[in-house]
Amino acid sequence: MSKYDIIVLGSGPGGYVTAIRASQLGFKVAIVEKESLGGVCLNWGCIPTKALLKSAQVFEYLNHAEDYGLTVKGADKDFNAVVKRSRNVADGMSKGVQFLMKKNKIEVIEGFGKVKPGKKVEVDGKEYSADHIIIATGARSRELPSLPQDGEKVIGYRKAMTLEKQPGKMIIVGSGAIGVEFAYFYNAMGTEVTIVEYMPNIVPVEDEEVSKQLERSFKKSGMKIMTSSEVTKVDTSGKGVKATVKTSKGEEVLEADILLSAVGIKSNIENIGLEDVGIAIDRDKVLVNKYYQTNIPGYYAIGDITSGQALAHVASAEGILCVEKIAGHHVEPIDYGNVPGCTYCSPEIASVGLTEKQAKEQGYDIKVGKFPFSASGKASASGAKDGFVKVIFDAKYGEWLGCHMIGAGVTDMIAEAVLGRKLETTGHEVLKTIHPHPTMSEAVMEAVADAYDEVIHL
Amino acid sequence: MSKYDIIVLGSGPGGYVTAIRASQLGFKVAIVEKESLGGVCLNWGCIPTKALLKSAQVFEYLNHAEDYGLTVKGADKDFNAVVKRSRNVADGMSKGVQFLMKKNKIEVIEGFGKVKPGKKVEVDGKEYSADHIIIATGARSRELPSLPQDGEKVIGYRKAMTLEKQPGKMIIVGSGAIGVEFAYFYNAMGTEVTIVEYMPNIVPVEDEEVSKQLERSFKKSGMKIMTSSEVTKVDTSGKGVKATVKTSKGEEVLEADILLSAVGIKSNIENIGLEDVGIAIDRDKVLVNKYYQTNIPGYYAIGDITSGQALAHVASAEGILCVEKIAGHHVEPIDYGNVPGCTYCSPEIASVGLTEKQAKEQGYDIKVGKFPFSASGKASASGAKDGFVKVIFDAKYGEWLGCHMIGAGVTDMIAEAVLGRKLETTGHEVLKTIHPHPTMSEAVMEAVADAYDEVIHL
Repeated sequence: MSKYDIIVLGSGPGGYVTAIRASQLGFKVAIVEKESLGGVCLNWGCIPTKALLKSAQVFEYLNHAEDYGLTVKGADKDFNAVVKRSRNVADGMSKGVQFLMKKNKIEVIEGFGKVKPGKKVEVDGKEYSADHIIIATGARSRELPSLPQDGEKVIGYRKAMTLEKQPGKMIIVGSGAIGVEFAYFYNAMGTEVTIVEYMPNIVPVEDEEVSKQLERSFKKSGMKIMTSSEVTKVDTSGKGVKATVKTSKGEEVLEADILLSAVGIKSNIENIGLEDVGIAIDRDKVLVNKYYQTNIPGYYAIGDITSGQALAHVASAEGILCVEKIAGHHVEPIDYGNVPGCTYCSPEIASVGLTEKQAKEQGYDIKVGKFPFSASGKASASGAKDGFVKVIFDAKYGEWLGCHMIGAGVTDMIAEAVLGRKLETTGHEVLKTIHPHPTMSEAVMEAVADAYDEVIHL
Repeated sequence: MSKYDIIVLGSGPGGYVTAIRASQLGFKVAIVEKESLGGVCLNWGCIPTKALLKSAQVFEYLNHAEDYGLTVKGADKDFNAVVKRSRNVADGMSKGVQFLMKKNKIEVIEGFGKVKPGKKVEVDGKEYSADHIIIATGARSRELPSLPQDGEKVIGYRKAMTLEKQPGKMIIVGSGAIGVEFAYFYNAMGTEVTIVEYMPNIVPVEDEEVSKQLERSFKKSGMKIMTSSEVTKVDTSGKGVKATVKTSKGEEVLEADILLSAVGIKSNIENIGLEDVGIAIDRDKVLVNKYYQTNIPGYYAIGDITSGQALAHVASAEGILCVEKIAGHHVEPIDYGNVPGCTYCSPEIASVGLTEKQAKEQGYDIKVGKFPFSASGKASASGAKDGFVKVIFDAKYGEWLGCHMIGAGVTDMIAEAVLGRKLETTGHEVLKTIHPHPTMSEAVMEAVADAYDEVIHL
């Protein structure tokens, strides 16, 4: 029986990053993967969707070439080529992880892994042992009982990125990051898209003003949006799919070729031996402490199967911290209040910290600042005037409570706020940080200035 | 004679921002402008060039649509429409400044202003007085004696953004930000471009690795680049322009339709009354202290006519500080070592702090980290794998000495480094700041990790 210092179960952005960091720290590491290296993120999530979204963005440029003084004849998309490009990008990244495993001398064990008592892992009948077993099996698309996925007409995100044929009409149920990214993609490609959201606002975890802005932008681009609405019945017996939607105004039946269910995710905690070992779970999540130790010594869990935000960058950070702790490093527990969230539709959304509503609910006396990209020179020059940066400060101590952005390129701009918040910056320090002109990033400085009544360009 | 608290001479990004901040602080303010509000930056610099560059970028997408699974039968540019769009963007911004002047109750005095003794300003024969006079007259294109601009075949940046006809061949002398931005624009539009640079590297103020990367990218896109080379003679007698270039290998004569001279700028210090008042200058610059006070009480100077970096965001910051000091605020002098510089060609360049060479020359024991976008998932998905992020830390105390970026969107990413440096972050803090996945900004975190031998994706 092969023996390792550390075995990682699952090779998503939690697992493979953990394995690499563990190897750097001198551990003998194996990683178990039932499918492709890189997990959902690389193969069926973050990366291939960004490739699709890039094609959509370029297609929009083609369709609006005249706005830039350019002319185009015969602009069209080749849907299968768009999908193929996305698959190629994902495959390339997965090969990259393969290379990294080899380079870091990490053994890759192919197959479905289960934890067993006595710090063992069984993969397709074969046993391996380790001093430390890190479970990083991730999550999958959640299925609502009222919305069973048949993989043909009622699909999850995975199928949504590899459809053989572009649907003429599509219903998207759920408007979290996954829902609105596909909504943007398919709408830009020419599909007629309707979003059905149970909550009163789309992207319901975001600041309300961000939700409202996205709704405006999406409606302008031709999407239909139904909020405070719920699909109660789906009929796939005919040619397409008929969805009965309960709205505040009554019932409506929508027809489409495809219904995408994007109502969240479900942890992969089944059949991986948790009960066998006696690892405690709470509903859908493995219980861990701040070092990702489960209740059973030697067993750890990170990523989407634990209670932190189900985001790739969270999983990676948790895994790194987990093995650094095992290696005896001094580690600072992760501040889950300072994790950025990004949505890559157009306009993009990026945010960190409290929304205005949350800040008020938590009893803060706040200062709010907002700077619209319509007042930004760079945004004008780029033809990207939709959106804004909104900042929230504690009025008393100047703590930067939250930062909410919607607009072109904001997913690359949020890092400034995350770092600033980590370093406990004050608004005044951000304001006196010279932001280069002309950039979209000036909007951060101006939003902070607005919070302190010093905004220049409004 | 009209009397003000503050008169600002010049309405560029130094002057108009100063005027707005002064008005916020309760001063009665007038601003003098001989041409269009917004100065060179809004009308003939930052903004209209970014509009041109955006058209070039979109044109590149049109020409590479197939890379994204899209098809185009015929893509073309309408050069005049591209220029017109750029002018419209500039005009819109200038109108925006007009609106801001009105909103902030700032009196706009049209005409050519001169300072006079006794805290007066004369504009076209009429006199105005103020308690404080802030000179912000900016700069213009520098002319080399060997390269006199005739405005037809040998031109400066201003003409370069409003040519009536796209040149078939163009020589660009000087490869600072202005030179390489136009080089990228014209090359992308289909002009045959040759860059002639006196120094051994293009964009010579940047870190050498950045210069080398840009050179590779530019050459790949078809430009001819001559470094350590100098135009010694220009002959415009024929149809086009013949430039004699002295290189390390001897002399070469280049022919082109247009030669753009982009060899830096020259302060506008002439004929504005400096001698009359007795304001001290040193060569091309007005001498000021760290609060922008000249040697004559009541007279201040900010922006390109002073010795700081000739950048719009520096001028704005100087002006704000200057009037806050006048208002009696406690102000922190500007740290010129923490001013970001951006160049908006493709790939973009953004940097702050010391280059590797400078850090070594200053005797630092350094840790250097570098992360190429070729290893970034987001870059792969976006088809933007050129470039990298490079970071330089002091090995002893962990101070972030410099950050150098080249790649897509980096001009919006440098703010993180500027803020981090202002807040005296350590590498470890940046490393433990969760950067969202998948973004280009992860490259900052990874570059820092590389400096500390903890990089994951290399």
